[in-house]
Amino acid sequence: MYSAEERKVIRELGIRVRQLRDEAGLSQERLAELAEMHRTYISSIERGQQNISLTILIRLATTLEVSLERLFTGI
Amino acid sequence: MYSAEERKVIRELGIRVRQLRDEAGLSQERLAELAEMHRTYISSIERGQQNISLTILIRLATTLEVSLERLFTGI
Repeated sequence: MYSAEERKVIRELGIRVRQLRDEAGLSQERLAELAEMHRTYISSIERGQQNISLTILIRLATTLEVSLERLFTGI
Repeated sequence: MYSAEERKVIRELGIRVRQLRDEAGLSQERLAELAEMHRTYISSIERGQQNISLTILIRLATTLEVSLERLFTGI
């Protein structure tokens, strides 16, 4: 279904979200609460299992207080 | 449905895709062909009417030969 490149980016973005969440000192529960998402959704994003939409990316970036550009730096 | 911030980013991303497409000297038809999407989908993305997914973002960035980071610079 997804190309190798797409799977790679989805996985790397999940790692980046986890990194930024750790840096912000937030648990998955707290990030989920702040970003108005379910905790299991955050968990599946971090495990590289979600082809998330632009609005979800925006909500994560806003909640983690980073730019979208920063979310994708080096990915 | 979408917040003002989300609509703003979706609109700005559409403008950015158009800018990059123009810089690459590609018509909407040609970009659609290369990225394996329908021309009307490209058109609606550029008009800020699509909450596109990560895999679509990846395909656009790859086809336009820019990083995802560059796609979101300043947005």
